[in-house]
Amino acid sequence: MPLKEDIKFMKLAKNLAIRGRGRTNPNPVVGCVIAKNSKVVAMGYHKKAGQPHAEMEAIREANGKRINLKGAVMYVSMEPCCHFGRTPPCVSSIINYGIKRVVIGMRDPNPINNGRGIRALKKAGICVDVGILEEEIKNINLPFIKYITKGLPYVTIKAASSLDGKIATKTGSSKWITGEGSRAFANRLRGYVDAVLVGTNTVIKDNPSLTRRSNPVTRVPWRIGTSPQDGWGSRSAVLKHPIKIILDRKLKIPLDSKIFSEGPLSRSIIATTEKAPPAGVKRFAAVHNVELLFCKEKSGLIDLKDLLKKLAKREIVHILVEGGGETIASFIKEGLADEVYFFIAPKIIGGRLAPTSVEGDGVKDVKEAISLNDICIKKIQNDILIYGRMTG
Amino acid sequence: MPLKEDIKFMKLAKNLAIRGRGRTNPNPVVGCVIAKNSKVVAMGYHKKAGQPHAEMEAIREANGKRINLKGAVMYVSMEPCCHFGRTPPCVSSIINYGIKRVVIGMRDPNPINNGRGIRALKKAGICVDVGILEEEIKNINLPFIKYITKGLPYVTIKAASSLDGKIATKTGSSKWITGEGSRAFANRLRGYVDAVLVGTNTVIKDNPSLTRRSNPVTRVPWRIGTSPQDGWGSRSAVLKHPIKIILDRKLKIPLDSKIFSEGPLSRSIIATTEKAPPAGVKRFAAVHNVELLFCKEKSGLIDLKDLLKKLAKREIVHILVEGGGETIASFIKEGLADEVYFFIAPKIIGGRLAPTSVEGDGVKDVKEAISLNDICIKKIQNDILIYGRMTG
Repeated sequence: MPLKEDIKFMKLAKNLAIRGRGRTNPNPVVGCVIAKNSKVVAMGYHKKAGQPHAEMEAIREANGKRINLKGAVMYVSMEPCCHFGRTPPCVSSIINYGIKRVVIGMRDPNPINNGRGIRALKKAGICVDVGILEEEIKNINLPFIKYITKGLPYVTIKAASSLDGKIATKTGSSKWITGEGSRAFANRLRGYVDAVLVGTNTVIKDNPSLTRRSNPVTRVPWRIGTSPQDGWGSRSAVLKHPIKIILDRKLKIPLDSKIFSEGPLSRSIIATTEKAPPAGVKRFAAVHNVELLFCKEKSGLIDLKDLLKKLAKREIVHILVEGGGETIASFIKEGLADEVYFFIAPKIIGGRLAPTSVEGDGVKDVKEAISLNDICIKKIQNDILIYGRMTG
Repeated sequence: MPLKEDIKFMKLAKNLAIRGRGRTNPNPVVGCVIAKNSKVVAMGYHKKAGQPHAEMEAIREANGKRINLKGAVMYVSMEPCCHFGRTPPCVSSIINYGIKRVVIGMRDPNPINNGRGIRALKKAGICVDVGILEEEIKNINLPFIKYITKGLPYVTIKAASSLDGKIATKTGSSKWITGEGSRAFANRLRGYVDAVLVGTNTVIKDNPSLTRRSNPVTRVPWRIGTSPQDGWGSRSAVLKHPIKIILDRKLKIPLDSKIFSEGPLSRSIIATTEKAPPAGVKRFAAVHNVELLFCKEKSGLIDLKDLLKKLAKREIVHILVEGGGETIASFIKEGLADEVYFFIAPKIIGGRLAPTSVEGDGVKDVKEAISLNDICIKKIQNDILIYGRMTG
């Protein structure tokens, strides 16, 4: 049974961790609380990759206040590092400052650390407790955990449809099915991921800019990639511009697509295969900020798993797949999707030829349908947002 | 400004009225409260077509208690009748018993009465107030109002789909997309309507019995055909067996379909056209409890408006259209649908060839999509029920 006090301070560390969401990739979100005589004396969280880790932020705050950390207790949501990464190892500082006990939420799933930090602290005579609020802490680091253990980015699917599942009319008209609130919400999801991915047809038919539009609303769903029990938070919006990824096997998208011209100049990656037409390769080779990423082929299409592996190598931890129906279906079919956000407008479009949110071949038997877990439902103005995680 | 007391007693009358839901067709639901010295002395509601009206039920209760109604005030949710229908006119009794004031929720929309009851009461020196809680009272009688003023049944659409709008897989597998709770709920909707309608393909592919299965759960949505603000009630389930209507232009459905054999022997109506194949006509002519209903043709299909008119002539006030996607689309396209119940399961079926909840041609531009009003959302176990009324 963990102490009540330990739970209280670890919850605080977790809430601090969450503040970094969307900015720490490829690192996890981590929060840290230092207590002396059961009172919080310093706090910190990891703000951004390259900047100090949570532990160092808290120690720095304590130093600023001229607090002697000898005999203090540190609560940190993830195991401190004992390796030199972009910053020196936290373990050494914890030992040097004379902290007597370290309470850890979860082990660092990163194989280069996993357990080594804990062992180093124990070896220095520090009392270490691991696994306080472990599930909750894991839940705020799902993208990082998948990325670091499987070498694949976490995949969030986003779709917006009518009540009857249509993402456009039979003629391709799709502006706008959902209301302003849903669209603003969906746009804010872009602030939490490293990259936004769409298929060729979406670029050709809808010509989206795929940028993260600024907007004055501060209510944002920081829940993306986290556990549903973390609810829908209200934090200031992150204004980060995701990388744009386009699946374009035949290199058909026009050079004057809005993804290349509109919004801030963020990177674009065009995923294609070795069989891409040379003329297309030549056409894109010279374009500034555009990378042609050559992936394996699988059943005549881009091998998505290979693509995801290559994206992970580029430190892309979390991607948002925004459509269309064929692209979404292929991620689901390959078992590569982790969670979905379905925005459903209370409208009926109809049409046996109108595209739906998930196309592809689909399953044969209802029993094979992909069931969602941890479902959350939210009403956004007149629309309904249904969130769920994929089974398995 | 109506008196507080009038509102209180009219609310009671309305709640009494609701108790008759699903059993009074082709009559409205009506409730009645009799008060003396601001105290309720008797109550009643219309239980079933052919049985006494609400006013007579209340008067009878007062008589049973030997209460002298001279000087009493009657609250009745709909204008009392002054014509001989299946029962003698209520207006005469109200006058004869010496009631001094009658408070009426809404006028009787039935053209043979509309205002005549009110005039007769006034002529007899009774003080009459009309329009107390009028909107709420209208809202519990939407099917009756449409039926009596337009000569058409009220049409409720029911669909059950996956998150991506599919009502079956590409191979036609559809058992079961939604959970037990949704199916029980949907089945109970059948207890509130006069008839359930499906298309030929649904009978051939799914072979449903279309019966009202009894079930021990008493929570039922009495809201069908009423205003959303009436919420989701908890009343004992009505065990009424709806008439089965099948759209079958070419008389293709097999005689051994479950609709003809399973469940209690309720009537079936097969809607077809004058061009129906004679062999089919002959095949069905002799079947007990089956009526062939010949309708006009419209663009090569059954003229649904003509069908609805013919159903109204058979005192069918309220029908539940249960699918499939083509049948639902045709009711929506013709502007003949009044409200929808969409049950959505948190599953993904996928498939560009899998049928969706609303097929047909569909709209061309998103701006032409049918928007729903008065949307209500309810979570039923893991499923989501979205209710809405059609615009216009």
